[in-house]
Amino acid sequence: MTLKTAQQYEDSLRKLKFQVYLQGEKVANPVDHPIIRPSMHSVKLTYELALDPEYEDLMTATSHLTGKKINRFCHLHQSTEDLVKKVKMQRMLGQRTAACFQRCVGMDAINAVDSVTFEMDEKLGTHYHERFNQFLLKMQEEDWTVDGAMTDPKGDRGLAPHQQADPDLFVRVVEKRQDGIVVCGAKCHQTGALNSHWILIMPTLSMGEKDADYAVSFVAPADAAGIVYIYGRQSCDTRKLEGSSIDVGNKQFGGHEALMVFDHVFIPWENVFMCGEYEFSGALVERFAGYHRQSYGGCKVGVGDVLIGATALAADYNGAHKASHVKDKLIEMVHLNETLYACGIACSAEGYKTASGNYIIDLMLANVCKQNVTRFPYEIARLAQDIAGGLMVTMPSEKDLHNLEIGKYVEKYFRGVNTVPTEHRMRILRLIENLTLGTAAVGYLTESMHGAGSPQAQRIVISRQANLEQKKSLARRIAGIPAK
Amino acid sequence: MTLKTAQQYEDSLRKLKFQVYLQGEKVANPVDHPIIRPSMHSVKLTYELALDPEYEDLMTATSHLTGKKINRFCHLHQSTEDLVKKVKMQRMLGQRTAACFQRCVGMDAINAVDSVTFEMDEKLGTHYHERFNQFLLKMQEEDWTVDGAMTDPKGDRGLAPHQQADPDLFVRVVEKRQDGIVVCGAKCHQTGALNSHWILIMPTLSMGEKDADYAVSFVAPADAAGIVYIYGRQSCDTRKLEGSSIDVGNKQFGGHEALMVFDHVFIPWENVFMCGEYEFSGALVERFAGYHRQSYGGCKVGVGDVLIGATALAADYNGAHKASHVKDKLIEMVHLNETLYACGIACSAEGYKTASGNYIIDLMLANVCKQNVTRFPYEIARLAQDIAGGLMVTMPSEKDLHNLEIGKYVEKYFRGVNTVPTEHRMRILRLIENLTLGTAAVGYLTESMHGAGSPQAQRIVISRQANLEQKKSLARRIAGIPAK
Amino acid sequence: MTLKTAQQYEDSLRKLKFQVYLQGEKVANPVDHPIIRPSMHSVKLTYELALDPEYEDLMTATSHLTGKKINRFCHLHQSTEDLVKKVKMQRMLGQRTAACFQRCVGMDAINAVDSVTFEMDEKLGTHYHERFNQFLLKMQEEDWTVDGAMTDPKGDRGLAPHQQADPDLFVRVVEKRQDGIVVCGAKCHQTGALNSHWILIMPTLSMGEKDADYAVSFVAPADAAGIVYIYGRQSCDTRKLEGSSIDVGNKQFGGHEALMVFDHVFIPWENVFMCGEYEFSGALVERFAGYHRQSYGGCKVGVGDVLIGATALAADYNGAHKASHVKDKLIEMVHLNETLYACGIACSAEGYKTASGNYIIDLMLANVCKQNVTRFPYEIARLAQDIAGGLMVTMPSEKDLHNLEIGKYVEKYFRGVNTVPTEHRMRILRLIENLTLGTAAVGYLTESMHGAGSPQAQRIVISRQANLEQKKSLARRIAGIPAK
Amino acid sequence: MTLKTAQQYEDSLRKLKFQVYLQGEKVANPVDHPIIRPSMHSVKLTYELALDPEYEDLMTATSHLTGKKINRFCHLHQSTEDLVKKVKMQRMLGQRTAACFQRCVGMDAINAVDSVTFEMDEKLGTHYHERFNQFLLKMQEEDWTVDGAMTDPKGDRGLAPHQQADPDLFVRVVEKRQDGIVVCGAKCHQTGALNSHWILIMPTLSMGEKDADYAVSFVAPADAAGIVYIYGRQSCDTRKLEGSSIDVGNKQFGGHEALMVFDHVFIPWENVFMCGEYEFSGALVERFAGYHRQSYGGCKVGVGDVLIGATALAADYNGAHKASHVKDKLIEMVHLNETLYACGIACSAEGYKTASGNYIIDLMLANVCKQNVTRFPYEIARLAQDIAGGLMVTMPSEKDLHNLEIGKYVEKYFRGVNTVPTEHRMRILRLIENLTLGTAAVGYLTESMHGAGSPQAQRIVISRQANLEQKKSLARRIAGIPAK
Repeated sequence: MTLKTAQQYEDSLRKLKFQVYLQGEKVANPVDHPIIRPSMHSVKLTYELALDPEYEDLMTATSHLTGKKINRFCHLHQSTEDLVKKVKMQRMLGQRTAACFQRCVGMDAINAVDSVTFEMDEKLGTHYHERFNQFLLKMQEEDWTVDGAMTDPKGDRGLAPHQQADPDLFVRVVEKRQDGIVVCGAKCHQTGALNSHWILIMPTLSMGEKDADYAVSFVAPADAAGIVYIYGRQSCDTRKLEGSSIDVGNKQFGGHEALMVFDHVFIPWENVFMCGEYEFSGALVERFAGYHRQSYGGCKVGVGDVLIGATALAADYNGAHKASHVKDKLIEMVHLNETLYACGIACSAEGYKTASGNYIIDLMLANVCKQNVTRFPYEIARLAQDIAGGLMVTMPSEKDLHNLEIGKYVEKYFRGVNTVPTEHRMRILRLIENLTLGTAAVGYLTESMHGAGSPQAQRIVISRQANLEQKKSLARRIAGIPAK
Repeated sequence: MTLKTAQQYEDSLRKLKFQVYLQGEKVANPVDHPIIRPSMHSVKLTYELALDPEYEDLMTATSHLTGKKINRFCHLHQSTEDLVKKVKMQRMLGQRTAACFQRCVGMDAINAVDSVTFEMDEKLGTHYHERFNQFLLKMQEEDWTVDGAMTDPKGDRGLAPHQQADPDLFVRVVEKRQDGIVVCGAKCHQTGALNSHWILIMPTLSMGEKDADYAVSFVAPADAAGIVYIYGRQSCDTRKLEGSSIDVGNKQFGGHEALMVFDHVFIPWENVFMCGEYEFSGALVERFAGYHRQSYGGCKVGVGDVLIGATALAADYNGAHKASHVKDKLIEMVHLNETLYACGIACSAEGYKTASGNYIIDLMLANVCKQNVTRFPYEIARLAQDIAGGLMVTMPSEKDLHNLEIGKYVEKYFRGVNTVPTEHRMRILRLIENLTLGTAAVGYLTESMHGAGSPQAQRIVISRQANLEQKKSLARRIAGIPAK
Repeated sequence: MTLKTAQQYEDSLRKLKFQVYLQGEKVANPVDHPIIRPSMHSVKLTYELALDPEYEDLMTATSHLTGKKINRFCHLHQSTEDLVKKVKMQRMLGQRTAACFQRCVGMDAINAVDSVTFEMDEKLGTHYHERFNQFLLKMQEEDWTVDGAMTDPKGDRGLAPHQQADPDLFVRVVEKRQDGIVVCGAKCHQTGALNSHWILIMPTLSMGEKDADYAVSFVAPADAAGIVYIYGRQSCDTRKLEGSSIDVGNKQFGGHEALMVFDHVFIPWENVFMCGEYEFSGALVERFAGYHRQSYGGCKVGVGDVLIGATALAADYNGAHKASHVKDKLIEMVHLNETLYACGIACSAEGYKTASGNYIIDLMLANVCKQNVTRFPYEIARLAQDIAGGLMVTMPSEKDLHNLEIGKYVEKYFRGVNTVPTEHRMRILRLIENLTLGTAAVGYLTESMHGAGSPQAQRIVISRQANLEQKKSLARRIAGIPAK
Repeated sequence: MTLKTAQQYEDSLRKLKFQVYLQGEKVANPVDHPIIRPSMHSVKLTYELALDPEYEDLMTATSHLTGKKINRFCHLHQSTEDLVKKVKMQRMLGQRTAACFQRCVGMDAINAVDSVTFEMDEKLGTHYHERFNQFLLKMQEEDWTVDGAMTDPKGDRGLAPHQQADPDLFVRVVEKRQDGIVVCGAKCHQTGALNSHWILIMPTLSMGEKDADYAVSFVAPADAAGIVYIYGRQSCDTRKLEGSSIDVGNKQFGGHEALMVFDHVFIPWENVFMCGEYEFSGALVERFAGYHRQSYGGCKVGVGDVLIGATALAADYNGAHKASHVKDKLIEMVHLNETLYACGIACSAEGYKTASGNYIIDLMLANVCKQNVTRFPYEIARLAQDIAGGLMVTMPSEKDLHNLEIGKYVEKYFRGVNTVPTEHRMRILRLIENLTLGTAAVGYLTESMHGAGSPQAQRIVISRQANLEQKKSLARRIAGIPAK
């Protein structure tokens, strides 16, 4: 069984014993919690579509370890074609969920850990890569969703891990035992943590010798003893508790983030992939970030497609669709969205083989991709709000529409073109609200800004990859200045 | 009593018998409803500060009718200095509330109605201006908050009022009686409607002869028989029901919009300021919009000041404040915000006297002001999210912070620089969330887009005011082409 | 001999008998004219580097007709890899010339004509493709530079070809004879016309039945009887007459455009590829434009590399290179430039096989590429001027530097950091002037705007390719609205 | 005679004995030199219009020293109304010249020196202000054009004046004598230097004690012994030598910059306004820059008006004026241009009285104004090129139009709509070329970037004026965080 059914996935999740808190209360059954469940649906769809022949080419791949058909999210990219298909799969899933489907971090993490552990072993004589392969084999066999966890709380941004007032502000090894290690600390912003079977921990920074205890990478069952999750709030999160269908904007799908706390968690050596080799922490960060910056050239584009479609419908529904400025703004939204896609495709097509045999993206172009992702979705959202009109934020609730006394007023006065039911118009406006101000805006906007690294992080990589000295040589030759 | 105290204002509101629905239920006491009350606080502050000597110069003016000191919101501008002070008052109130304080629409409406009724009477021999002056006198005496109501539902944007499938999609006169008129229809997006004593209705479009029944302007008590309000939802509105202090972002202040339905409402002639004079509807729209576009060069700038301050604190609190890119982004935010202010000041300083004697803004510059307001707050908000970091959308709730079992984790892992309490950091991030994704984003972003007219409306006015023929003449002269 | 040497190329040009006028005078020897010659150097480099082993992979390809090694500019793309290599070749040549190397239009034209003539023959039973293959064979054998000529003067933009006051404002067939056709009209903006051996004419618009005489495509020797060239002025063109080395900015390379007039030119049938089949004119335009919009994702990026390098040197030379804002602006320039490259790569990697067997780019992404090219070079140029400083436009001439009396002042006062000769600083600033205001700005800026079609032309294609209906379906599904 | 006629101005210039070099040759008669003369025309217009009753209100003012009517360029601003009129005068002159009229630097310099010398005298007991008043009296009596000269060559930007390898890279006092001082050094980018009667030198930086010799301000006759001018090149400068009327774009008007070298120039004490008081150098820089940043909110807007007009004509001339995207781009150009004007007006209207009695602009808003000027003209120029079309850079010369053999082709093929002569179309396109790539682009673009200080200089002032601490307090109050 290398491909779970959607139902098997949901069932497997129910068996996990998460310690999770949400708004000050412990959650007994995360799978069915109305705030969490839509995010589970998003992940579940990655299982469902893998078994759908229409999506087989995008959603599945052939394992280089076993030759079996596996979910692409469990796959190590074996070619640039694989890298391109990854982006196309992500765009398609973004189109289907209009939300974060959460399973990319694990895929990006295994691809990064693969080549880095290989290179560590080659240079240091360690045996991390073999251990990693054992884990990967099981992950592919079981079709696990894995949460790739990188971001530490970081405390004071001006200080290194070992300089912080509290030593736990970055995940660290507090004890090395014969059978394994004990870790403390936390990972922030853990996307889809509660929909995952396993977690794969990586360091968050390039580290120096004094931070060796913080250079640690490992896997653990998502419900391992000592791991506590605290669920993050999202804009409009409690609308999901209202039982409404319209006001939530996107009833079926969502995403989530949580704080993941490690309170003296034991990790057996077989699950440890880095422990003190600080000189490799930078490479791991850079590669994971590179893969994940590529990802955003797919998933955010798919969500953008939904937002563009919703905006076009909003114009249809109020009769403004023929106005030249409306048409032009829709073109601009498409143009910006496709520019992001072009960057996602380009960094994939220009990928190359690593020493371990899997493929990695072009680093410059992947960072350029993500840098644009920190800008264009905001402009697309602004244009969506422009066309949607003010009603998006002044519209009464679904309950008003259904109220016996005033429902008639809502029905009457919020109708646009006469052939479209008022309810349809409300649904589309709520979807746009969801994507630009509500729960999905968390993923489409703020996560576009900070996920896979904040804008300045990309600028640093772009600067390093820019090869300004070669560009200066080009200019000197043209200007007739002797080479240095 | 031309200046009410804050308490008198609140008391006076309680006496009104609003028919108001919120999320499907009739609200018995709007003043104390936890979702509505913060918006009442914003208006209340306009009463409080008018009696504070520190703000007297900005908050009050001398009535040209009575010579008495009145609240500036009840004033007809008597000079460009008055216009400039209006903008400064609005910036200050935006700084104090970080929200929409709602009272501007009434001020802008009375200033528009004043000159238009004067000109109608001059041309048509009607007596609207005298009636208006009677109302204004009472408004100044009673220190009323007046809701200037313009925006009709509009239905199909491609059709004129009389062409709509439903004749009520624009407010209209359904019956003319000896003692007054009966009106049907609705006004959308009514800012601060439930915090107002009176409403001042204006048409929403320049109209033709066939739409004469829709060319109607009048005042009515906000709780007149036949008026029903349906409260609009805002992003994160129900957080106000949680009783929290942190998660709401801005506990004290807010804004609101409502649908205002006229179900056969009777208006005595003394309260009617336009009834069928369709050829003046365009002037009324253009002037009200012009004043209101000026307003945004004040209030949104004040809210922007708070957002910039919050963003600077967010950087202080996580130790990133010395990074050159952080400093540069803060400068950019200030630059954009002050550009809006410059536009607000300029259209005021270049104002001029109307035929009726009050002052109006420079129309080109006021529209340029608003056009920039449809852009820069979005970029300021994007930069705020950049500096704030992803925590803004993944942070647990206030209840988690106070939970006995996991509060320690929240306290520990969300601390930034060690000297700042975690709670302070959470408060600032929630404020930024409130302003960029939450309830205040409705006012700071979407209302900046559509309030006082959507972007395309300004472009039409800019086009009309551009005087391209004169610019062509300039170019011809330079290029040596004979004048036409 | 399928690869000419650079010298053979120059010699072959000398044999042509061009009728060419420049600034009111007939030019006897275009090859050696100081204003024209730098543009010839750019084309010449495409011959030189094809024989340089270092560039063989990019500069040459294997003919699908003969299996011989040919210059890539004479090649029909046989794979997406060929499309990607085309873009990389163009970036490299842009880096080496900092100018337009002119030979792309011919390459893009043959690739467009190939598939369109194939499809015409298939549908209409004509024999154009065979004729075209005969021409292509000779072009590859002789290593010709071919000018792909599309843009007609167009006259009144509001009128179709046959509606114009003057029937010649689009190239047209004025006579059909047994042995061939006679054409009149003109092509504007002919890039590199005078450095070409042959010209390949294509219609400029999608045409209707009444414009059938204008639906004409053919090849002719560049110096055919009846063809007259009028050389276009460029900013700072006459600096090339001064004999200076510094002030021209780029002494060796340049580009050129000319008006190409057809005054009753006879074309034998064997050289005619379309004659009246108006229903295929649109496809030819769209494909040529598509290929050429891809091209700009290569060549302009290469020129951008030189400008970025020059700007970095300007900062080095005045000691400002360590300022954080300077570093950040350089990163932004790189980011924008690489975004263009990403678009060029993406539309190539997503290319596909046409019916005739050659490969074409992804149309959406190629248009997105070009749309960005109409924006980003302008911003890159603005940032270059920011860092370069005002001296770029106030600096004295080279002759002042070498003047016996005042050369010392120039030497003394325009020195930046003490270790860099003043002359080097002047050379770099002149190069930046050349690229942002001078002769090369024509290619880097204005041609980026209009070459391969003006911005609005791309927006129309983007709109057509946007598939808004599919996007609306996505939104409906998420919002819970039944499919139409 | 406090108002010279235009002819008197030109005659007075002829009497000056400038030492000036242009392209390696000494210029005997700058007034009649074809490259220089158009810039003289621009200044001359400031004399002509001052005597034109239509412009009297803008062009003249009443001297606070003598009560006489003087040219506004010689005036100390006595009110915010004066500040506003200054901006309006500048816009009007920009409209009339489409070039830099050069006389603003002197006006801005005298206004800055006035208040700073007053404050120096008050604090230090010096007598600079009295000396300055003597000069000002003569300047007003003689209606002098004064070149306010600030920018030193600066050498290595990382070093202070006294640290430079060459001590003359900033203007400095090399000898103090009983009767005066001797200065060496140079001032770069001297706008209109050769059209000025006097020069007013100011330091370019806030200086420290070690740079006391560089803290020097004085006036000198523009042709004083030891001053040598080296004329700066501009894009397309030599087109003025061709004797053409069309190709120059703007035949009558222009601007110029020159290097001004001080080779041991003697300045009598009566003409010295600062000599060693380094602690006041910063104030002088900041105030001059502030006034000059205001200026750009006038003059560049006027030039922008011409460019917008030319662009609208270009669209008229080729029949594209009805296209919705063309209309929208023109609106955007107007919007951006008026935003600059709003900033110019706002910083003037918010001006205030200095200790010496003249009025100064609001520093924040003036810097915001200039910061926008470093951006919007570039975007306006880009849009102008968009609408103008590629012909602007591929069009043949005027001589081709008039050539007997090919003039017919130029006439025929470059005609747009049939009713407009081809020559008119060429004239307008050459004007747009002139403003976006040619000599006027130096003023409209690069000078907009660097004149009155480069963008980073404004950002530093904006940062200082931002009062972030007050903004943080606002945010703390809203967020419920105790004041520090």
